[in-house]
Amino acid sequence: MTDKTTPRPVFFVSDRTGITAENLGHALLTQFSSISFEQHSLPFIDSDKKAQLAARTINKIAQTSQQQPLVFSTLIDDSYRKIITHTQAHIIDFFDTFIKPLEIELSTPSSHAQGLSHGISNEVVYMSRMDAINFALKNDDGTNTKEYKDADVILVGVSRSGKTPTCLYLAMQFGLRAANYPLTESDMTGGGLPKILQPYRNRLFGLTINAERLRMIREIRRQNSEYASMAQCQKETRLINSLLQQENIPHINSSHISVEEIATSIIQLMKINRPPIF
Amino acid sequence: MTDKTTPRPVFFVSDRTGITAENLGHALLTQFSSISFEQHSLPFIDSDKKAQLAARTINKIAQTSQQQPLVFSTLIDDSYRKIITHTQAHIIDFFDTFIKPLEIELSTPSSHAQGLSHGISNEVVYMSRMDAINFALKNDDGTNTKEYKDADVILVGVSRSGKTPTCLYLAMQFGLRAANYPLTESDMTGGGLPKILQPYRNRLFGLTINAERLRMIREIRRQNSEYASMAQCQKETRLINSLLQQENIPHINSSHISVEEIATSIIQLMKINRPPIF
Repeated sequence: MTDKTTPRPVFFVSDRTGITAENLGHALLTQFSSISFEQHSLPFIDSDKKAQLAARTINKIAQTSQQQPLVFSTLIDDSYRKIITHTQAHIIDFFDTFIKPLEIELSTPSSHAQGLSHGISNEVVYMSRMDAINFALKNDDGTNTKEYKDADVILVGVSRSGKTPTCLYLAMQFGLRAANYPLTESDMTGGGLPKILQPYRNRLFGLTINAERLRMIREIRRQNSEYASMAQCQKETRLINSLLQQENIPHINSSHISVEEIATSIIQLMKINRPPIF
Repeated sequence: MTDKTTPRPVFFVSDRTGITAENLGHALLTQFSSISFEQHSLPFIDSDKKAQLAARTINKIAQTSQQQPLVFSTLIDDSYRKIITHTQAHIIDFFDTFIKPLEIELSTPSSHAQGLSHGISNEVVYMSRMDAINFALKNDDGTNTKEYKDADVILVGVSRSGKTPTCLYLAMQFGLRAANYPLTESDMTGGGLPKILQPYRNRLFGLTINAERLRMIREIRRQNSEYASMAQCQKETRLINSLLQQENIPHINSSHISVEEIATSIIQLMKINRPPIF
């Protein structure tokens, strides 16, 4: 029986960054919200010696904690994996579970190469992601509009509606070139789209936000300001909603969804062709 | 037998963003580098109707392609999953494989709630990630040093050594506050650390880079410039290496590793306490 008061130790073990192990473990453990977990990351386990050291760390926690540790492992090397498998932990082994059935299905042995999934396995794909990050930074906040012709998407919305983090995520995760243009009150009362945006109408995507949520976010930035007042937030959110509807620009309400959800929704709604991820 | 000349269709099916499904699929399929894959993402499958539409899409490709599609699924809802399981594809079902054994191990039923892993399941954790992104942007490139006291880490290195993307990744993925300060030639010939950095010595981390790699990256930015010349790149890389050694600042060579690898190495080498991911 699981004791729900003491946090259960969880280890993420990997031969490289551990990001895949953490993401997969996170996806599974968030399904058990009544249990608390204590997280430990053990990345770069790429020698027998490091695997033995990791095994000792896991066993030590297993002995001092009242709970058996869980281990999420993406180790590829059989020898390191064997060392971790023999610890006093409950092992969830991603490669062991999926790679053998896939080898059979694909009639091909796997390469057992480490570090492919968050390393530079494809230089061209990697450099285009880095380029996309630079593009997002250079074309942030309407300061530079000269490169809009090269954008995959141009986000529009009022200040603090989530444009910048979304652009950075689109670049970092998907290698897409995302610019953003903040719509001010005067932009939205000019009777139509600002001139600078008109040639790029097909690439525009709007982020809307509830007035109360906007007020809360702006208040963190500039406390007790006109900018963060409920009246100003209501005015701007009303203006952006009607501009986007009137101009028929696809949009989404960012109030209660994450940058990951906003970004994937944009790709889907705009039917953007994503560069291959490998 | 797998035909290696025609790309094999791969679907990533999810009730939300599909990012977990893609990460898992990517980690596994990069182990089969001799096979080419054609990627399709089917995110936001959150109704029977959408599941049926997705199933039709998969079956259509199964009939037109010479190869049976692979489906990586992170669907949580049993009803949608059943619809996808009955397609003419080879299914790799992430939740079905792991959630039942975990329910037994944890003596707790899973919540079967959708969208927890890349949504806003924890508002505090999410807002601190957004704060960290703003921090990275505000404290980029040495333009603002007033907030260095709040930084978890301050990256130093020559221009174009990977500081900015690494800071953004540390913020986006881990919610860490990362600033960066570019070291110019004059900074590095002043006989020690620049004054502005001296109070933060414990939080400094250096990125080094090979001269040839630096030249290549700078050449993309400013072609045929003095800035991108081999002589200048050799001079700056020599200076930074000796400054970091002389001042005993931990560092890593960023030439052939990804931002993900740089970021996780920094966390490990600096023993940074990461905020919980859930």
